[in-house]
Amino acid sequence: MIDKNALLEEITRLVVTELKEQNVTVSTKQQKSYVPVSISARHIHLQRDHLDALFGKGYQLTKHKDISQPGQWACNEKVTIQGPKGKIENVRVLSPLREATQVEVASSDARKLGLEPPVRSSGNLTGSAPITIIGPKGTIQLQEGCIIADRHIHMTPQDAMEFGVRDKQKVSVKVPGGKGGLMGEVTIRVRHNYALDMHIDTDDANAFGLSGNEQLQIIPD
Amino acid sequence: MIDKNALLEEITRLVVTELKEQNVTVSTKQQKSYVPVSISARHIHLQRDHLDALFGKGYQLTKHKDISQPGQWACNEKVTIQGPKGKIENVRVLSPLREATQVEVASSDARKLGLEPPVRSSGNLTGSAPITIIGPKGTIQLQEGCIIADRHIHMTPQDAMEFGVRDKQKVSVKVPGGKGGLMGEVTIRVRHNYALDMHIDTDDANAFGLSGNEQLQIIPD
Repeated sequence: MIDKNALLEEITRLVVTELKEQNVTVSTKQQKSYVPVSISARHIHLQRDHLDALFGKGYQLTKHKDISQPGQWACNEKVTIQGPKGKIENVRVLSPLREATQVEVASSDARKLGLEPPVRSSGNLTGSAPITIIGPKGTIQLQEGCIIADRHIHMTPQDAMEFGVRDKQKVSVKVPGGKGGLMGEVTIRVRHNYALDMHIDTDDANAFGLSGNEQLQIIPD
Repeated sequence: MIDKNALLEEITRLVVTELKEQNVTVSTKQQKSYVPVSISARHIHLQRDHLDALFGKGYQLTKHKDISQPGQWACNEKVTIQGPKGKIENVRVLSPLREATQVEVASSDARKLGLEPPVRSSGNLTGSAPITIIGPKGTIQLQEGCIIADRHIHMTPQDAMEFGVRDKQKVSVKVPGGKGGLMGEVTIRVRHNYALDMHIDTDDANAFGLSGNEQLQIIPD
C-alpha cells in the first residue's frame, strides 16, 4: 500500500537533490542576445554657450566622421581637458550640441587628471566631477560635468522586445578570450532613433582584450 | 489505484518544471571564497646574463620594497622597454632573478609599444612577443619574452583545499560596483610558499574600478 503524500515528498526531495548535484541550469526561451560593441575614447559634448566660449561666438562644429548613433558625429574640433594633477590634449568634440556640457573619460584618464568622476549614464551630471576645458578661443571651468560613462547598449524598442530587455535595465555582457569575463552593470538604453550598439570605454576594451566590432552576448542579470 | 511509475514520472516532471519556473539556483557548501587583490604595474624579471648586459657584469639588484609573495621584491633598478611603435621608461625590475627574462605589460602598454603579446601565465614564454630592453649599461633584444600576464591567484595547498580549487584551475572573480562584473579566466596557482593574493594588471584595475586591497569573491567556472 502506497502512502501518496509520503511518496510525493520523498520524490520531490530526491528530484531536487539530483538536480542540485547535477548543477542543473535552466535554459530560457531562445531570443536575440548578441550585440556589436564599439569603443568610446574620451570625448566631450558641448552646450551652445560653452562652444561659443571655447571656439568663438556663433562657431559651427564641422564633421570629422559619423559615429554609430544616427545624427551624431565626431567633429574636427578638439579641446584640452585639465584637472588638478594633469591635462589631456586633443579630446574630440561630438555633435550635436547638448543641454549641458559633458566630459566622458576613462578611469585611467581620470587618474592622470587627478579627478574621481562617478560612473554615470550620459546626461546624469548632478554631483559629477569638476573639470577645466581649454579651447582655442577660451577656457571654461565646470563645477560638474565630468563622468566615467557607464557601459551601455543603445537599441530601439523593437530591439528591446527581441532581446527581452527594457529601458534602463542592467544586464551583463559575456566576453570570450584570455582576458574575458562578464562585463556587469551594463545599462540598456532604448530610443526609437538608436542603432543597436554597445559602448564601452578604452579601459574596458584593454582589460577585456576587445578592439571593437566584436559581437558580444547579453546575459540578463 | 495508483500507478506508481506513472506517478513518479508525473511528479518528477512537475517538480522540475516548478524549479525551472522559479529559476532555482543551487547553493553549494560553504567554503572560503574571498581573496585580496593586488594590482601589478608593468614590470620585468631578468635572467643573470641579461642583468649583466643591462647593468654591468656581476651587478646585484637592490631592494626598493617587498611585494606580496614571500622572497620577492621590487628593485630600485628600472629599465626602458621598446617596441616598433614606442617605448616606456621606468619599468621596474623584480627580484629574484629568473631562468628566462620576462616582460609583463598591460594591453594599453602593448598598444603604445606596437606589440601584440599573448595573454599567458608567468613562465610560459614560447612564441611570446619580441621586445627591446634598455638599461644604463647596455641594450638587449629579445626574440620572445613579452607577455600580458593572465589574471591569477597565488595560494598555498592549504588555501586551495579551503577554497575548493586546484592548481591551474580557471575561475571567475566577482567585482562589485558601477564598473563591476566577473573577471574570467583567472588562473589558480598553488605553491607551498605562496601568499594568498590575486594579481591583476592596471587595465583590469581601471576597467573594474579597483584600487587594490579589495576582497573579491571567487566563483568557480
